[in-house]
Amino acid sequence: MSRRTFAIGVDFGTESGRALLVDLTNGQEIATAIHLYANGVIDEGLPGTNIQLEPDWALQDPNDYLEVLKKAIPAVLEKSGVNPEDVIGLGIDFTACTMLPTTSDGTPLCFLPQWRNHPHGWVKLWKHHAAQDEANQLNRIAREQGYTFLDRYGGKISSEWFFPKAWQILNEAPEVYAAAGRLIEATDWVVWQLTGIETRNECTAGYKAIWSKSEGFPPNAFFRALDPRMEHIVDEKMSRTLLPLGTKAGGLTQEMADWTGLLPGTPVAVANVDAHASVPAVTVTEPERIVITMGTSNCHLLLGVEERVVEGICGVVQGGIIPGLPGYEAGQSCVGDSFGWFVEQCVPASYEREAANQNLSIHQYLEQQAARLLPGESGLVALDWWNGNRSILVDADLSGVLLGLTIATRPEEIYRAMIESTAYGTRVIIENFQARGIPVKEIVVTGGLPERNKLLVQIYSDVTGLPIRRSGTTQGGALGAAMHGAVAAGTSAGGYASIFEAASHMAHLHEESFTPNPQIKAIYDRLYQEYLILHDYFGRGANDVMKRLKQLREEVIGAPK
Amino acid sequence: MSRRTFAIGVDFGTESGRALLVDLTNGQEIATAIHLYANGVIDEGLPGTNIQLEPDWALQDPNDYLEVLKKAIPAVLEKSGVNPEDVIGLGIDFTACTMLPTTSDGTPLCFLPQWRNHPHGWVKLWKHHAAQDEANQLNRIAREQGYTFLDRYGGKISSEWFFPKAWQILNEAPEVYAAAGRLIEATDWVVWQLTGIETRNECTAGYKAIWSKSEGFPPNAFFRALDPRMEHIVDEKMSRTLLPLGTKAGGLTQEMADWTGLLPGTPVAVANVDAHASVPAVTVTEPERIVITMGTSNCHLLLGVEERVVEGICGVVQGGIIPGLPGYEAGQSCVGDSFGWFVEQCVPASYEREAANQNLSIHQYLEQQAARLLPGESGLVALDWWNGNRSILVDADLSGVLLGLTIATRPEEIYRAMIESTAYGTRVIIENFQARGIPVKEIVVTGGLPERNKLLVQIYSDVTGLPIRRSGTTQGGALGAAMHGAVAAGTSAGGYASIFEAASHMAHLHEESFTPNPQIKAIYDRLYQEYLILHDYFGRGANDVMKRLKQLREEVIGAPK
Repeated sequence: MSRRTFAIGVDFGTESGRALLVDLTNGQEIATAIHLYANGVIDEGLPGTNIQLEPDWALQDPNDYLEVLKKAIPAVLEKSGVNPEDVIGLGIDFTACTMLPTTSDGTPLCFLPQWRNHPHGWVKLWKHHAAQDEANQLNRIAREQGYTFLDRYGGKISSEWFFPKAWQILNEAPEVYAAAGRLIEATDWVVWQLTGIETRNECTAGYKAIWSKSEGFPPNAFFRALDPRMEHIVDEKMSRTLLPLGTKAGGLTQEMADWTGLLPGTPVAVANVDAHASVPAVTVTEPERIVITMGTSNCHLLLGVEERVVEGICGVVQGGIIPGLPGYEAGQSCVGDSFGWFVEQCVPASYEREAANQNLSIHQYLEQQAARLLPGESGLVALDWWNGNRSILVDADLSGVLLGLTIATRPEEIYRAMIESTAYGTRVIIENFQARGIPVKEIVVTGGLPERNKLLVQIYSDVTGLPIRRSGTTQGGALGAAMHGAVAAGTSAGGYASIFEAASHMAHLHEESFTPNPQIKAIYDRLYQEYLILHDYFGRGANDVMKRLKQLREEVIGAPK
Repeated sequence: MSRRTFAIGVDFGTESGRALLVDLTNGQEIATAIHLYANGVIDEGLPGTNIQLEPDWALQDPNDYLEVLKKAIPAVLEKSGVNPEDVIGLGIDFTACTMLPTTSDGTPLCFLPQWRNHPHGWVKLWKHHAAQDEANQLNRIAREQGYTFLDRYGGKISSEWFFPKAWQILNEAPEVYAAAGRLIEATDWVVWQLTGIETRNECTAGYKAIWSKSEGFPPNAFFRALDPRMEHIVDEKMSRTLLPLGTKAGGLTQEMADWTGLLPGTPVAVANVDAHASVPAVTVTEPERIVITMGTSNCHLLLGVEERVVEGICGVVQGGIIPGLPGYEAGQSCVGDSFGWFVEQCVPASYEREAANQNLSIHQYLEQQAARLLPGESGLVALDWWNGNRSILVDADLSGVLLGLTIATRPEEIYRAMIESTAYGTRVIIENFQARGIPVKEIVVTGGLPERNKLLVQIYSDVTGLPIRRSGTTQGGALGAAMHGAVAAGTSAGGYASIFEAASHMAHLHEESFTPNPQIKAIYDRLYQEYLILHDYFGRGANDVMKRLKQLREEVIGAPK
């Protein structure tokens, strides 16, 4: 590359969108800008109305996504002083499954006066959990009718995914379903808005909409079995043409060029998902290195050589992360979420005071105290199921356990035991891959948690026995999106021929590496055995106490099951 | 009784002694006075020396007991204005096993200059836990040699009891053991000081020194098997003459009369133990009504008709509580202790602030919040083993469990689950008695906890399905001691012929009664089944994770096993 070229990645998160302008030669992050969604997560009332949402609903306003484009892209251009001519590609990444109904020309139904006051006309955010009944029925029917696609998803389709959400629209608002010319992932919708061309990407189709490269979508008969009105959902409202990641979706429209300050025709990559886009951004484009995005929950992404059935994963999608390779996704439902719960609900005032005295956050203070403990010193072992268990048990009705409590137990001991339990949970996931012949030899962690908490990273290394590197960027999603933008642009435009080439130039890791301490690993091996025994006892049906307690709870509070 | 007569009970607790002057006609508590022990619990350094005690040691100074007599008895006489001539009896109750070495004339070795600087010369308080090795060996030898006396004590002699403590003296300080003309319970020693006559009571001998009315002490051969030097411990340093509760030990000496302000010759009852003395003081002198003294731990006392072997009790002693009836004692190691732990270690600052705003203690605030919950609403179940489990598993290496945690779990839910778990533990004890044909039809609770926490009492009623009455006195031990003093005095002196007669006049209950709510009981039945499954799984060898965690902990911190 003779001329210095740049790409922009736009990361659409849960509360805000962020644009990142990067130097294509070395991945240097030149400028970043965040735009908060005006309507954020809509989970109480529909904006501008008196309409209350039911519990478990979570919507968004697609206009907030457009505002990110209009505000954050011009902002990074201005901050960086980069000439728009030198921005040779654009990519986006998004939460998923975050989906919306639109007209055939891509207009969100909620933009239209006749649907604006209808909750089903809006975007259903990834954490919209009101389609559980549909998910349960879908899983039951798929099992009863012997569909093998469930095997690709650990045996269960989540209520967060595309078809349960679509089916909820049909069940509760058939008029909205009928009016929806298209049902589309928000990430694909934004690319449509950027380019004027409707495309669909293989990643969200594979991980969220039961599509596979070899088998396509489930057959129409399956959808008919769900509801006859859904029989032709794919052909009527979606698309059977799915594009590999890094493909050019199209060029920027004139209108979008006017909004963003970029040149019309600037290549735009097909849409992508945040965690998946991060993988090449943290240098991983080959098997054996698992990427864990650590936050409120953990998302594990791993490349394989051939597609295999693996127990309890979230999904395996050929080309779902990196073209040509099967991408495995697994997950832990509760990581930072449970630490946050602990800090909010269980840390005494004396600790708050001491943390304040030392000018530390309570998390930092607890980390400091917990770091002084030896593994095994607390006598505690926990099951990290505060939000249930995704991988590998795929059971939302499991719950958390603390075992080994005494009146000498201190808060930092519980805190450390909770961190350790999430590390054991990750080890279960890794050993589950290994048992299926999918090797894991290194961990790369990304996300806010490992940035802030080195103790946690070291514990993960000691528990798993694997070396760990941390992401070199705090904006893996946006960087990965920009890299895909550079690939979409291609070499002729000053970009890259492949994501492999892009990663070799643009991706980087934090220099510091974490390696397991063999003595500590030996102690954790013993603790992990205890975790496994409890994991299987409570998680595999020997004692379904957790389910019975949830059942009793629902009876007692009279909530719908 | 034509003339108004009185008795005094003196209750020797862990930190202080309390005298209570009561009206014999109706049990009215006329005056009370507390004297704090100057040396309290001696668990760091020996008073007046630089000698440091090892961990797990807990000593007392016998002079503190004498000071209680000198200060608290005159104080109640003065406060009440009662004529010493009208005080017709005196009784005491004490913690147990709290024991000391003395010369043959009853002088505590620690009063003598040559032994004053020797820790083994002092009183070993009930919670002196440094004789665990001796207890372990004693239990092993008794099992190996087939002694059936273990059956009376749930299969295990505690390190807190008489012979492990005596043996520790011999092991670590044979010179102290040799110099000890007598080894004696502090409660018997105080009666000796009051009367000038050495007596031994059946209660402490039975519950703490492996004595039974039918079999006596273990044979000399057993003690020889422990250590040849201990072969004749009973004949050399104790007594085979054990007196029933309520027996007159003797009359007050002139010296004691001078100290206390009572008349010389005032009848003094043989010694008693606090919890046991409380039983008639809360109206219980017959089978089928279990008395639970609730505090940091729970002590359960129940009368039977005939002596039976019951799994995991602390002991059964013929006449150990009420003459003529077998008295069963069971216990839970951790009740208020774990609530205290929770409040100190796990309650967030926001709750402290809210409690302060409402002018409530944090316990009161938590009780108020927890009382708003429905049973089963929290989805939690706990195992109440923060201090191990005494009855019925007799296993100090068990530990606490919280199960069912989610990120929605609130502190008051954990607090309530911990209360509930102690109620389940009590139900296990009650059902264990019932399964052996020893009926339980009512609960009487006494101690500080039920005074303060009505929610707890109601939960115990709902969980056990039994009506509960609360003690009418906050000073059950002292009232019971005074009642025994009245029995020791006898009818001729204006006292009572029996503890039954004394109880019928002097004992009373709080008017309010707690009865189980059938709907709530039905929910608790389901939760109790979950508790039982976990109780047996973790407590009966299916998964010894708790022991392995403690073992690992000890290895890791390098502490002696």
